[in-house]
Amino acid sequence: MPSPRRKVLEVLQGSTVTPPPIWLMRQAGRYLPEYRETRKQAGSFLQLCYSPDLATEVTLQPIRRYGFDAAILFSDILVIPDGLDRNVHFIEGSGPRMEPIDEEGIFSLSPEKVLPHLKPVMQAVEQIRARLPDETTLLGFCGAPWTVATYMIAGHGTSDQAPARLFGYRHPKAFAHLLAVLADLSADYLVAQIDAGADAVQIFDSWAGVLGETEFEEYAIKPVARIIRSVKERRPQAKIIAFAKGAGMNLRHYRQKTGADMIGLDWSVPLSFAADLQKDGPVQGNLDPMRVVAGGLALDDGIDAILQVLGQGPLVFNLGHGITPEANPDHVTQLVNRVRGIAHGA
Amino acid sequence: MPSPRRKVLEVLQGSTVTPPPIWLMRQAGRYLPEYRETRKQAGSFLQLCYSPDLATEVTLQPIRRYGFDAAILFSDILVIPDGLDRNVHFIEGSGPRMEPIDEEGIFSLSPEKVLPHLKPVMQAVEQIRARLPDETTLLGFCGAPWTVATYMIAGHGTSDQAPARLFGYRHPKAFAHLLAVLADLSADYLVAQIDAGADAVQIFDSWAGVLGETEFEEYAIKPVARIIRSVKERRPQAKIIAFAKGAGMNLRHYRQKTGADMIGLDWSVPLSFAADLQKDGPVQGNLDPMRVVAGGLALDDGIDAILQVLGQGPLVFNLGHGITPEANPDHVTQLVNRVRGIAHGA
Repeated sequence: MPSPRRKVLEVLQGSTVTPPPIWLMRQAGRYLPEYRETRKQAGSFLQLCYSPDLATEVTLQPIRRYGFDAAILFSDILVIPDGLDRNVHFIEGSGPRMEPIDEEGIFSLSPEKVLPHLKPVMQAVEQIRARLPDETTLLGFCGAPWTVATYMIAGHGTSDQAPARLFGYRHPKAFAHLLAVLADLSADYLVAQIDAGADAVQIFDSWAGVLGETEFEEYAIKPVARIIRSVKERRPQAKIIAFAKGAGMNLRHYRQKTGADMIGLDWSVPLSFAADLQKDGPVQGNLDPMRVVAGGLALDDGIDAILQVLGQGPLVFNLGHGITPEANPDHVTQLVNRVRGIAHGA
Repeated sequence: MPSPRRKVLEVLQGSTVTPPPIWLMRQAGRYLPEYRETRKQAGSFLQLCYSPDLATEVTLQPIRRYGFDAAILFSDILVIPDGLDRNVHFIEGSGPRMEPIDEEGIFSLSPEKVLPHLKPVMQAVEQIRARLPDETTLLGFCGAPWTVATYMIAGHGTSDQAPARLFGYRHPKAFAHLLAVLADLSADYLVAQIDAGADAVQIFDSWAGVLGETEFEEYAIKPVARIIRSVKERRPQAKIIAFAKGAGMNLRHYRQKTGADMIGLDWSVPLSFAADLQKDGPVQGNLDPMRVVAGGLALDDGIDAILQVLGQGPLVFNLGHGITPEANPDHVTQLVNRVRGIAHGA
C-alpha cells in the first residue's frame, strides 16, 4: 500500500504540497559519474535495461545523491518494439536504430511475445521498490503509441517525424492498427509495472508537437486515452501522468480527453497558460533543461518563475524535458535546494 | 508601383481574395526536375544563390510550371552569416555548416561588409521582377535573428537548438548583441530587396518553437519587431509576413507585438485557432507538407479543411513548412487546381 507520505503521489491525488515535490526526467543518466561507471558493466544499452540488478542500481543512484521525491524506473520507451522483434539497438551519440516496419509487418506483429520479454523489467521494479526509501514515489513508464510508432516507421529518430506522418496519410488503416497494438501492449505493460510495485506511471509522448490538428486527435489523444482507460479499468487506483511534448494549446483538452491525472508541461508552455491548466488538476514541469546546464542566475530565475506562478497549486517540480549529459551535477544540487527553500551553500 | 492585381499583395493589404492566392514555401527546389538541372550548373549551393542568372531561373521555374500567385526569391537565410565571414557551406544531405561563433567573435563582427556582399541577390531580385508576369507578387525574405543565430552558435543545425538556448542563458549580453546586429542587418537587407523590386517580404523564424516564454519574447518577438519597425520607418508601404514556426499559442500576440501584416501558420496550428488569428488580419498556411508527398485523399482533405475554415477571410494558401524534395510535382498540380476550384484532371 502506498504510504500517505509519498509526496508525488499526493500531488497526483490532487493535493497541493509545499514546497512541491521534485524529480527530473532522465534523472538516472549520463550526467552522473556513478551512472557512467555502472553503464560500463553492461555491454549494450538494452542489456542495462534488461539487467534487473544494474537497472535497480542506476534507478537508485539519483535518489541517493539528491533525495528526489520520486524514482523513475530506468528503462527505455523502445523496449516494446524490441519485444516485437524490431531489432532495436542504440548507437552512441546518434540514437536508436531498428528495422523500419511496413504495412505487411504491422499486420503480422506478435504482441503476445512482448510481456514475457519484459519480465526482467518487472523484476527491476520489484527490487527498486524494495530498496527505495518508503517516502519515495516509484514511477513506471512507457512511450506513447505515436512516439514509439515514429521510430518503428522511420527506423531511427528524425527532426520532425516526417516518415511516420507520411505513413499515416498513406496507410491510415495500417497505422491505426499499429497504434492500437502499441496502446494495448502499453496498457498491459503499465499494469504489470503497477503490480510489480510502481506507485504511478508516466506516458511519454515526446513527438506530440509535430502533429496537425486531426492527427493530434487520432494519434496522440485516442491511443493514450485507450491506454489510460484500459489501465484504470483493471487497476482503478492507478495514477497516470501524461507528457505530450510540444502539444501547446492542445493541452487545454488533453487531460480531459485522455483521462490523465497529471499532465507534464514542456519548457515552451507559457506559465500563465500552465496556471490555467493547473486549475483543472495537477501539473508537472517545466524548467528548460538548458537552465540546469547553465546554472547560476539563469537556473535560479527559471526556478523562481515556476514556483511563483505554479507553487500555490498541485505541482510536481520537474524539467520540461530530460536532463542532458552535459548538466553539472552541482547544478542539480542548486536546483533541489532552491525548490526546497534551502539556502545556497547549505 | 505594384499592380492592384497582385493577389498576394491584396491579401497582405487586408482584402479577402476568392479563391485564395497560393504559393508554396520552398516552391523553387529539389522536387522539381528543372531545378535539379539548373543546380548542376552551380558549383556550390551558395554559388547558386549568388548567381543572379541562375537564381532568377530557379525562382521563375515554379511560376512557369504552376502559375503560383507569388514568386519568392531563391536564396537562403544563411547568406547573412556568410556575409559576416562565418565560412558558411552546405553539405549534401546533412545541411548547413559554419564556424561556430563565441562571445569574442560576436563583439568583433563586421556588419558593414554584408550588404556589399549581397549585391548579386539584389541583382537577382531586379531580374526576377523584370521577367515575372505582372500579376505575380514577388516576395523577398530573410531569416529571423533567433533562427539565424541558432546556426551561428552551433555551427550546424540541431534538433532543438540547445546550443543557442544555452548560450543565451550563459551570455545574455553577447547574445542580445548578436540578435541586434542580425536584426539591423536584416532590416537593411529587406529594404534593399524592396528597393530592387520585391513587393513584400517574409521573415522566417523556423526555430521559434523551441523557446521558453521569456526567450520567445526576447529572442523571437523583439528582434522581429525591431526589423519591421526599421523597414516600415524607411519604406512605409512595405508589407511584411512573419512566420514563426512552432510558436503555437504565442501567435496570439505575435502579430500585434511584431507589427507583421500577415502571419504564417505551421501545420500544427489548429484551424479553429487559425480562424481566431484571422480575425486580427491575414494569415498564410498551413497544409502539412507530408500531405503533398502523400497526394490523393490525404491531400484533398487537408486542402478542403483549410478552405472551409479560412477561405472566407484574408488567406494566402501555403504549406505549413517548406515543400520537401520527395514531393511529386503532379501532386502540386492537384493542390493548385483544387485550391483554384479547377476539376481534377482538368
